[in-house]
Amino acid sequence: MAKATWLAGVDVGGTTIKLAIFTEEGDFVKKWEVPTDTRDSGHNIPKDIAQTLHETLQLMDADFSFLKGIGVGAPGFIEVETGFIYHAVNIGWKNYPLKERLEKETSVPVFADNDANLAAAGEMWKGAGNGAQNMLCVTLGTGVGGGIISEGLVVHGAYGMAGEIGHITSVPEGGTPCNCGKTGCLETVSSATGIVRLAMEKIQTQKEGALYSLFNEKGTLTSKDVFDAAQQHDTIALDVVHEAMYQLGLAIGNLANSLNPNVIVIGGGVSRAGEYLLKALHPHFNRFALPKIAEETTLRIANLGNDAGVIGAAWLVKQNSMRR
Amino acid sequence: MAKATWLAGVDVGGTTIKLAIFTEEGDFVKKWEVPTDTRDSGHNIPKDIAQTLHETLQLMDADFSFLKGIGVGAPGFIEVETGFIYHAVNIGWKNYPLKERLEKETSVPVFADNDANLAAAGEMWKGAGNGAQNMLCVTLGTGVGGGIISEGLVVHGAYGMAGEIGHITSVPEGGTPCNCGKTGCLETVSSATGIVRLAMEKIQTQKEGALYSLFNEKGTLTSKDVFDAAQQHDTIALDVVHEAMYQLGLAIGNLANSLNPNVIVIGGGVSRAGEYLLKALHPHFNRFALPKIAEETTLRIANLGNDAGVIGAAWLVKQNSMRR
Repeated sequence: MAKATWLAGVDVGGTTIKLAIFTEEGDFVKKWEVPTDTRDSGHNIPKDIAQTLHETLQLMDADFSFLKGIGVGAPGFIEVETGFIYHAVNIGWKNYPLKERLEKETSVPVFADNDANLAAAGEMWKGAGNGAQNMLCVTLGTGVGGGIISEGLVVHGAYGMAGEIGHITSVPEGGTPCNCGKTGCLETVSSATGIVRLAMEKIQTQKEGALYSLFNEKGTLTSKDVFDAAQQHDTIALDVVHEAMYQLGLAIGNLANSLNPNVIVIGGGVSRAGEYLLKALHPHFNRFALPKIAEETTLRIANLGNDAGVIGAAWLVKQNSMRR
Repeated sequence: MAKATWLAGVDVGGTTIKLAIFTEEGDFVKKWEVPTDTRDSGHNIPKDIAQTLHETLQLMDADFSFLKGIGVGAPGFIEVETGFIYHAVNIGWKNYPLKERLEKETSVPVFADNDANLAAAGEMWKGAGNGAQNMLCVTLGTGVGGGIISEGLVVHGAYGMAGEIGHITSVPEGGTPCNCGKTGCLETVSSATGIVRLAMEKIQTQKEGALYSLFNEKGTLTSKDVFDAAQQHDTIALDVVHEAMYQLGLAIGNLANSLNPNVIVIGGGVSRAGEYLLKALHPHFNRFALPKIAEETTLRIANLGNDAGVIGAAWLVKQNSMRR
């Protein structure tokens, strides 16, 4: 039997399952993906994970005994201690004992956490967090997600709901309705969806400039269009980027005053605007963070892309095996 | 030699040093205080603490060997790992090796932390937190202080500055200048000082009602006057309480979305308004917290008063000795 030193990371999404095997230091040994079988309330997924892991290990003349553990991230509400999934809408799992099932299939210790938390952990370990022990991770995608790392550990809160940064209220009065049932959430302003919504509102009244023309041509807009047009000094686009970054700067400035992170990492599709986004965000953050916090906190763009989840899942294994 | 089981808690303030000796379970054995000698940059304080501890132990036929450790809280910027005080303005300490000095005087292990953090830990252990592993503590006094407990431990952040809840920006545009250099901080609205300021502003334009009469009579106002008048349905006072609690509800609602605490404890002088304050705060919190978080988070008034600091200091000893 080989000494178990490898870490397996699994990121279960609604369409694909991303998998990777890592050395103990977090270097990739192998990375691949398989489709997610959401039939039958996701009941086949543990078997599928076990099988593809087994096959891949075999190709490397290895087997399950090479694995120190399997970390799994999934979107949804997860009890970390037991690896029990209360609800993962896109996957179909409801009250599903994921850890138990996957351990039964593999005989390898399994650890599970929310995918946003593991993406944050991944960025902390191997990405833009650069090992920072105190970190905020904000994901600007269709919605706004978040993960909080405090003293090297993921913050879960009382019921595993910590990190809902997207539902910080940015517009307390007269805000846009949010999917969560509230109004004026950060997500309604600074997500890709929020940015497009702001742009459409302005286009309907101002009717001029490059972004307006682009919309007339394409019949639709993306947040990338808005950032691109802003970089070309289009007035509407500049206004939208200003508003989205103003509210993001206020929200993360306030969180930084409360949590004093070393680094704030901005990820998700919107973050592809890169340095331009950071340049638009910085003045607002600096204005709303305490002077000493503004000075000492680094804002950085996430740099692991879609790998953050599997890397974070591997970190979860490492962290749990060190703890014992 | 006796087996070291007692915990000493010390809370160093600008005027008095509060001390207490506790059983391992956190029950008071003895509680007392001595004046703070701020002369000579606070240089005599470790000797004073050692002496009064020694004398008090002797009265109980005990000595330093009865102590498992000494926990010390002080207002200021403290490096927790080393017990080094960067700066404690009211005490006079600057770049002061508190842990080292007090250990030299007593030969007992010493642990130090910021007094607001220890007050939060005290409320967690023996007060309104009721053992909650995830807690926010907000102190509404001259300023607004805070302490954050995550998974049973005090959150310090990157440079020990976590918990500056009072400097969350509540009024992003046109806010009142704050001592920190920013404007519109929560502290400018929801502290005792902020509440009185709001009342004075309104009195100057509205010039009627019970609070206005009281001000004309006394020439001054306190936040207690404002809460008392609000309970008597004075219009100005009701407006002020509404504004102070609205902004507090927004700030802690947003923090609760991010941190998912079991309990939020409100302490400090303003919290003497008790249930009336909670009743005024609750609707705003419920509106700005995510529905599930609003439902599951308990808001409670701090109940240890001035003892929170020494109890938290004793907790610090207990927590550190368990860790080894």
